[in-house]
Amino acid sequence: MKSIKQEFTVPFSYNVEFTENLFDPANTLFADTVDSKGSDPKPTILFVFDSGMYDCQPNLMRDISNYTQKHSGRFSVVSEPVIIPGGERSKNDPKHVQMILDAIESADLDRHSYVAVIGGGAVTDTAGYAAAIAHRGIRLIRIPTTVLAQNDAAVGVKNGVNAYGKKNFLGTFVPPVSVLNDFSFLNTLDDRQWRAGISEAVKVALIKDADFFEELEANAKALNMRDKDAMSSLIYRCAELHLEHISTSGDPFERGSSRPLDFGHWVAHKLEQLTDYRLLHGEAVAIGIALDTIYSQLLGYISEEECTRILDLFRACGFTLYIQELEQHLDHPEKKESVLHGLQEFREHLGGELTIMLLDEIGRGVEVHEVDLPLYRKAIDTLRTNEKELV
Amino acid sequence: MKSIKQEFTVPFSYNVEFTENLFDPANTLFADTVDSKGSDPKPTILFVFDSGMYDCQPNLMRDISNYTQKHSGRFSVVSEPVIIPGGERSKNDPKHVQMILDAIESADLDRHSYVAVIGGGAVTDTAGYAAAIAHRGIRLIRIPTTVLAQNDAAVGVKNGVNAYGKKNFLGTFVPPVSVLNDFSFLNTLDDRQWRAGISEAVKVALIKDADFFEELEANAKALNMRDKDAMSSLIYRCAELHLEHISTSGDPFERGSSRPLDFGHWVAHKLEQLTDYRLLHGEAVAIGIALDTIYSQLLGYISEEECTRILDLFRACGFTLYIQELEQHLDHPEKKESVLHGLQEFREHLGGELTIMLLDEIGRGVEVHEVDLPLYRKAIDTLRTNEKELV
Repeated sequence: MKSIKQEFTVPFSYNVEFTENLFDPANTLFADTVDSKGSDPKPTILFVFDSGMYDCQPNLMRDISNYTQKHSGRFSVVSEPVIIPGGERSKNDPKHVQMILDAIESADLDRHSYVAVIGGGAVTDTAGYAAAIAHRGIRLIRIPTTVLAQNDAAVGVKNGVNAYGKKNFLGTFVPPVSVLNDFSFLNTLDDRQWRAGISEAVKVALIKDADFFEELEANAKALNMRDKDAMSSLIYRCAELHLEHISTSGDPFERGSSRPLDFGHWVAHKLEQLTDYRLLHGEAVAIGIALDTIYSQLLGYISEEECTRILDLFRACGFTLYIQELEQHLDHPEKKESVLHGLQEFREHLGGELTIMLLDEIGRGVEVHEVDLPLYRKAIDTLRTNEKELV
Repeated sequence: MKSIKQEFTVPFSYNVEFTENLFDPANTLFADTVDSKGSDPKPTILFVFDSGMYDCQPNLMRDISNYTQKHSGRFSVVSEPVIIPGGERSKNDPKHVQMILDAIESADLDRHSYVAVIGGGAVTDTAGYAAAIAHRGIRLIRIPTTVLAQNDAAVGVKNGVNAYGKKNFLGTFVPPVSVLNDFSFLNTLDDRQWRAGISEAVKVALIKDADFFEELEANAKALNMRDKDAMSSLIYRCAELHLEHISTSGDPFERGSSRPLDFGHWVAHKLEQLTDYRLLHGEAVAIGIALDTIYSQLLGYISEEECTRILDLFRACGFTLYIQELEQHLDHPEKKESVLHGLQEFREHLGGELTIMLLDEIGRGVEVHEVDLPLYRKAIDTLRTNEKELV
């Protein structure tokens, strides 16, 4: 019997740019991004907006319209943007993907056109998914507007929406053509959104970079006081570590069962679900990291002293590290309402063997493939006790 | 303003295997494919069947069941397969993708599980799309059962379904983990399906390999008489040329505007649509190639003698090269009902500049970026006149 072995590699590249006032007519970054080679015919761009961001930026449409006019020789814009709700709602309701596909179709966009999405991580995930499946891939420009999207959600290679009550059940690995991080969007964030993005930076520092963790400790108060320079520096370094991981891990499209950047995330995904997304993703990640850090310490990995430093950093940034949903049905991990059911859901999403990242010390993670449920119950108990003592 | 350049490459590899009696318990190819490394836990497989194929293979379920029992230590199978209609219907109705996603979800498949699809090219496209978007990619095994799927549709890196009346409006570039070409499926094809797959072989011979074209000429009668050896040899060489193109073209995921393997396809896609898919894809491709060959000759590229050899080969294989739909609204290329509107749809799907493959000589294509509509009308006229003379 014959056989043909097919082998090829596909190169991917994109820039993550850091700027301010992206749609100031004097800032040519956006025009240069969509028209890097003097394209002929000039490209068409469909904007997708996060309604939360849109409501806080009453001048955005006018600014984009002025910008488009100024650079009209280089690109054109579909007259009606698509506006979808911010936050997890955008990923939960299939009609939002449909709205974007409808707009792509009725504007006759092609594979050389662009979808430019401006908003938080959930909206960039939704628009990214719609762009990835239309015509087998419309070019995507992400313009993330939250801390979490700028340092984590919108810099990577994934997109996705929720289905069947499962997070990111539908999605693809398709890198964007560019990510434009405009720090001036951060001014409009409320305090919760501002803070939520910090936990992904703590996460990546904990598993990869002890120096960055110390920088975060030194800047904790400034971050809590909304110091923009401290936050810009956090975003840059966090994005850089995230990108480094993707390009050097050897598994950018996650074919294995390991996903180190998901430290703390099995808990986080489950708590978002259990609270019906009342918790922001970053708030849930902070709790997830706190829990897996205490569990690491109870297992004998990280020291008690380092464990305390980590919890203290989160508190100095203003995070709450305990919520009641952690305790429900703790003795019944087989029930969907138990946070411990999240372990099974996490394994299912990645596939293969269960792989959980824990902490060996600050700056170095360690992967385990089994969990000790009674010890997890004890970790939850510790978290509750700590938090009560603080009140 | 700072900037981070992200760069990485992703390696892809898969085997295209040629076999007979895939589910004979003594044939270990299928078991070896899903369990190449003694996987732990053992993988789960969801089967998706083409109802057309399924109805012709009354013993298939029993054979698979016996096979699974024999190799039960190596993989397990989801008890209920998904059965969807064969042909373009599977790609036209969104409920078929939904049925496959429902089955993936309710069986708790993960990224290490498999979707194994058995059927024609439309069904492998539909199942491939569903597998590609579930959990950002369930592993796909294609088991194509028609000539066209074995030599063309199911050996490449694309999947997709139709939407908004547009062919492959939704889809992705995601290679399978394996393609298992079982020649014994060919016995159940009706004469139209048997013949239809020949045109993709003629296509790839015309643009890439004059020797292969001569082999096809020599075998035309045998192919028309359903000689299985002649067909197996055609399938192998056509698949090989197709795979070579993907791995050596430098653009496996088609980011540019050029798509040489779509020679004759702008006409074919449009005729399928205009005939409401009464024409099989391969039948439409034969007409598309005939038209673009005559047009190439009228433009002064290919010689009249070679043009005649090409039309004669199709006729020797039993193809009809003219249908009435070619003539409707010929003076109104702006109307969707005109075959000439297909030029615009083709450009839109690929994006960027219009790029049409024509023939310089047998074995060598030439790309053009403009078309001469009056000359296309003349080519259609020639096709009709030729065909009338034959009757």
